[in-house]
Amino acid sequence: MNHHYVGIMAGGIGSRFWPASRSHFPKQFLDILGTGKSLLQMTYDRFASFIPKENIFIISSKQYENLILEQLDGLSKKNILSEPMRRNTAPCVAYFAHKIHAADPKASMVIAPSDHLILEEKVFENEITKALNYVDQNDDLITLGIKPTRPATGYGYIQYLKNQEASNGVFNVKTFTEKPPLELAKTFIESGDFLWNAGIFVWNVKSIVNAFSEHLNEVHELFAKGESIYNTEGETEFIEKTYSLCPNISIDYAIMEKAANVRVIPASFGWSDLGTWKSLYKNSNRDYMDNAVNGNKVMTYDTSNCLINVPKDKLVIVMNMDGYCVVDREDVLLICKTDDEQRIKEVTADVRQKYGDDFI
Amino acid sequence: MNHHYVGIMAGGIGSRFWPASRSHFPKQFLDILGTGKSLLQMTYDRFASFIPKENIFIISSKQYENLILEQLDGLSKKNILSEPMRRNTAPCVAYFAHKIHAADPKASMVIAPSDHLILEEKVFENEITKALNYVDQNDDLITLGIKPTRPATGYGYIQYLKNQEASNGVFNVKTFTEKPPLELAKTFIESGDFLWNAGIFVWNVKSIVNAFSEHLNEVHELFAKGESIYNTEGETEFIEKTYSLCPNISIDYAIMEKAANVRVIPASFGWSDLGTWKSLYKNSNRDYMDNAVNGNKVMTYDTSNCLINVPKDKLVIVMNMDGYCVVDREDVLLICKTDDEQRIKEVTADVRQKYGDDFI
Repeated sequence: MNHHYVGIMAGGIGSRFWPASRSHFPKQFLDILGTGKSLLQMTYDRFASFIPKENIFIISSKQYENLILEQLDGLSKKNILSEPMRRNTAPCVAYFAHKIHAADPKASMVIAPSDHLILEEKVFENEITKALNYVDQNDDLITLGIKPTRPATGYGYIQYLKNQEASNGVFNVKTFTEKPPLELAKTFIESGDFLWNAGIFVWNVKSIVNAFSEHLNEVHELFAKGESIYNTEGETEFIEKTYSLCPNISIDYAIMEKAANVRVIPASFGWSDLGTWKSLYKNSNRDYMDNAVNGNKVMTYDTSNCLINVPKDKLVIVMNMDGYCVVDREDVLLICKTDDEQRIKEVTADVRQKYGDDFI
Repeated sequence: MNHHYVGIMAGGIGSRFWPASRSHFPKQFLDILGTGKSLLQMTYDRFASFIPKENIFIISSKQYENLILEQLDGLSKKNILSEPMRRNTAPCVAYFAHKIHAADPKASMVIAPSDHLILEEKVFENEITKALNYVDQNDDLITLGIKPTRPATGYGYIQYLKNQEASNGVFNVKTFTEKPPLELAKTFIESGDFLWNAGIFVWNVKSIVNAFSEHLNEVHELFAKGESIYNTEGETEFIEKTYSLCPNISIDYAIMEKAANVRVIPASFGWSDLGTWKSLYKNSNRDYMDNAVNGNKVMTYDTSNCLINVPKDKLVIVMNMDGYCVVDREDVLLICKTDDEQRIKEVTADVRQKYGDDFI
């Protein structure tokens, strides 16, 4: 029996990727890089290369169940954990942990987002394997920390203690800092003590269940009640009820920032959260004018540094543009500066106010 | 019997208005100003307010016959002259003149484009009526000359002789100049002797038939042969044959620039040929940021001096743009500077080369 499990979180709506990412078809289901695979498919395949498929689970909203089954060939329906409502990541992790705990108390597990880019898959596999082997033996909560390449203000930072190595490559953590202002981010980078929080966690199931018990007992107790119900017919009904009682809270805030046994593995494997159009632009293949084009019939004239993401067969002419995003879908067209990426949330809020949820 | 006739030319493809104007649905059939009427409908209604409908004819390509019947309520099919192929304006005028001549040799007629904008319709009616009354009595070829408001380089210019007034408001013509360079256009404007050639002609049917006989006899003879066939069942077949023998030549070049009896009526009635996106922009209602928006769900942020012409129900977000055209259709999206208007022909040539006629 293999005691290594993966929980891929695929319930987000990728709101900064609007209008490509839509609430009925969010970012993780999109072939956003034009590779022929969605981000979810890439994430799944990345794990399936070294973890048995029966041990890989997708945790997502009920509404995406069919999308997941369509995209992940050979995935069994019982490997999907359907959340009846959005409650951020803490209930999601608690659900997965308790369910696995009920079936295999010796389990160790990875929790990973479904919508990130990882270029160096072999390095990734090595780091994850190192972390799993470590938590098989140690009751610590491991997070993977990405060695930062620039003072990004959109990420969380982890300060680690370079001289406190718990094991080979596993370090003690000093602080977590969410989305720092630019000046602070620059200081972080200069110090060399900070890593990006990629939201990839590794732990054994007992440690995470204990952590919930200690730091978010309210949620722990809710899910602990299901011990005999998980993996039976009653699970769906139990989860419906349980989720409706859960607070909306992130695993970072609820557990990682509070637990004393958090460790970090600094790593570099060509990671991007592909959180915004600009980050997609930076991670895309670009032509000689530095345009990142996704679309088969795009013609550019005197145009540079643009991201053009349009339907495959639509003829798109872009002339005399520099540094713009052009994102076209059947019912929505967005044209903005790539640097305006942070204003997408303002736009979608305005759209929701004016037209309701139809375009979101 | 009313001897005043109108021939509205509606066979063009409005290529500089691409991609709104398409070969299967050209500019004259579009409600390009968002008024609820197409340019053809506005042109037809403008004449129908003072000329009997049975005397108003549409000359166009066979392929647009159904479109014309759909758009012009109450138009009789016999009032459509279908051209079997495109041969520019001279054969078009010759066909109309000979057909009317066969039915009513005492006719006077107006020839007018279908796709221009005329704001002051009452002034227009007065000028046309003046011209018709003049040609009822005089064997001259009248063209309406628009008093220019700027040194436009895209129009033809008519130099007229201010001190040679043939009749009240009817002047002798000195020269025609097609699309002058900017410096020359400026000189024209400064001199005060030049008018824009709007392509609106008025003459009695004998004068124009004679003019063809004198200046383009080859075409005259072709159409003269049909004298007994016009307005009978044989007309279509005769025209098929005749058009295939016609040269491709404009009425301006063939007749107006050569005939000695050309006169001009200087006029001002809020005219624009709406030849390009820029001219549409200038003639459109604009918001407080000087954006001309056609579309019900357009949201602009930090955007000015733009023309946004998109499907009614498409949500369009434009952020941080200045002086651009955004034209969106189901299968084509065009984004360019309004000042790039003259490059549309380059673009459509490239599109045709790459993808054939599908997008044209």
